[in-house]
Amino acid sequence: MRRIGVIGAGAWGTALAMAAARAGAEVVLQARETDVVDSVNARHENSLFLPGIPLDPAIRATTSMGEAAQADALLLVTPAQHLRTACRALKPDLKPGVPVIICAKGIEIETGSLMSEAAEAELDSQPVAVLSGPTFAAEVAKGLPTAVTLAIRDEALGRRLLAALGGRTFRPYLSDDLVGAQVGGAVKNVLAIACGVVHGRNLGDNARAALITRGLAEIARLGARLGARAETLMGLSGLGDLTLTCSSLQSRNMSLGAALGQGRSLDEVLGERRSVAEGVYTARAVTKLAAEKGVDMPLCQAVDALLNHGANLDAIIDALMTRPFKTETV
Amino acid sequence: MRRIGVIGAGAWGTALAMAAARAGAEVVLQARETDVVDSVNARHENSLFLPGIPLDPAIRATTSMGEAAQADALLLVTPAQHLRTACRALKPDLKPGVPVIICAKGIEIETGSLMSEAAEAELDSQPVAVLSGPTFAAEVAKGLPTAVTLAIRDEALGRRLLAALGGRTFRPYLSDDLVGAQVGGAVKNVLAIACGVVHGRNLGDNARAALITRGLAEIARLGARLGARAETLMGLSGLGDLTLTCSSLQSRNMSLGAALGQGRSLDEVLGERRSVAEGVYTARAVTKLAAEKGVDMPLCQAVDALLNHGANLDAIIDALMTRPFKTETV
Repeated sequence: MRRIGVIGAGAWGTALAMAAARAGAEVVLQARETDVVDSVNARHENSLFLPGIPLDPAIRATTSMGEAAQADALLLVTPAQHLRTACRALKPDLKPGVPVIICAKGIEIETGSLMSEAAEAELDSQPVAVLSGPTFAAEVAKGLPTAVTLAIRDEALGRRLLAALGGRTFRPYLSDDLVGAQVGGAVKNVLAIACGVVHGRNLGDNARAALITRGLAEIARLGARLGARAETLMGLSGLGDLTLTCSSLQSRNMSLGAALGQGRSLDEVLGERRSVAEGVYTARAVTKLAAEKGVDMPLCQAVDALLNHGANLDAIIDALMTRPFKTETV
Repeated sequence: MRRIGVIGAGAWGTALAMAAARAGAEVVLQARETDVVDSVNARHENSLFLPGIPLDPAIRATTSMGEAAQADALLLVTPAQHLRTACRALKPDLKPGVPVIICAKGIEIETGSLMSEAAEAELDSQPVAVLSGPTFAAEVAKGLPTAVTLAIRDEALGRRLLAALGGRTFRPYLSDDLVGAQVGGAVKNVLAIACGVVHGRNLGDNARAALITRGLAEIARLGARLGARAETLMGLSGLGDLTLTCSSLQSRNMSLGAALGQGRSLDEVLGERRSVAEGVYTARAVTKLAAEKGVDMPLCQAVDALLNHGANLDAIIDALMTRPFKTETV
């Protein structure tokens, strides 16, 4: 796999392009913005989404999805709600058998589909993989040590992808649990907003740790219902990603929650931002999915109520905190 | 349970005394240092171990263990390696049937015993419970929301303890898995040192999240071998405590690791500290126990090698980072 295409040149797409370049690939990075294309090609920097980090000259940027699709493997790093559209646009340009690796985290609002389900529905002749784990983009771009889960059904193809993307500091671990590898990455964005609220309200780190713990239990319940293996949810793409996203204001979702916790309005915070806080959408999608599947997810519901249904922040915190004492696992 | 005794007036013992006082108890707090006794009784502050936080006047301090032992329930908050000695000293003064709640986290170096095993061996006629979870002492003392696991075999007695200790902000959840409730709290101190090293060496948050994930897998393996239930280790006393301790330099163990990561020596760092970094001892105890039980715990071993056997920090980081790619769960 000499040539790697990357669709989407936000911070994470750009960082993954760097990981692939370090592993020796020739990388074509597709961006919507001509500013980004110019910045990457002329100055080897993504000055819009990953400023200040020098990029490998082996990364070439283009606005053309078709050009990026001429690759031996393709990374999809679009916002989750645009993934299906991207797949439709890419389909005519993909050679059969070229693996498509989903790097977007979320659940499709309209259908309740996982990203792999949406991609497989649109791209029937491509093998689909999922890359997920605890990854701040800037750290990956800088070459700091990072471990991720790479989930794919075809183990032999998976091993070729490990070789094509992995290196000394970017370390993918193979799994065959596509569902499991996606549940954590989607739901953690919702829980990160809740942790941000706790932080913004100065409720302390003990409360945040309890919330992470109860949050992982929600992820595990939803995962089990969707057919994930329990150990996947306790791994890099589940617990790992959750603990990272919920422990740092580097996380867009946590910093959004923190702003809400400080009393700012959602519209005001979103209006100031260039990049997406995926958890706002996922809160709605996951709450709907949980209701359909009969899975109890009170924390995600509370975040959805806060973001999308005008619920009062203090009332929600009160309700979550004063639930009666009971045994831990009920 | 009107009267609660607390043995040990470090930050955590003092914070638990506050939680009990808030729940309406009359609290007797035993301290070794007369300075602490004077400070608590005269100024309602533990100026040595929890400075700046006003204490409830219902907390009375004493140097006498026998006096604190005249209680309806007794919290043991000594350093882990002193717990057995404290039990021996307390035994003559305890009324039969008075529950002893272990709040120390660690493994006895000499015997490899869990704290409850040491206590039960010494106090044959007292019911033994374990209180553990994600708890920075200062936050509990200030009344910030905190959830913990309270593990005890006798459920009815457990419910009485919940009522005696729990309140609006300090929320214990009942479990009957004493072993499970102790493994996480002991091992996390070792892993927090590793996370501190990663932080001190500027290896980034992705690496720390991966380490937490692999660390919880070590906790789960040891727990399973000792008879713990898997869900306990994914709960407040396992995952919850791990994620808290490994995410903040408030943690004594993580800050110790950070100093080592910055190139300082163990003797130098320990020489500056008044309070114990329990992980230094537990690293030795848990590595020995894991070897005896045939449990693979490479991260704990690495920390033990670094702290107690003069291993080179960079060589250890290299060895942990360049393990071959394999599937995630192996």
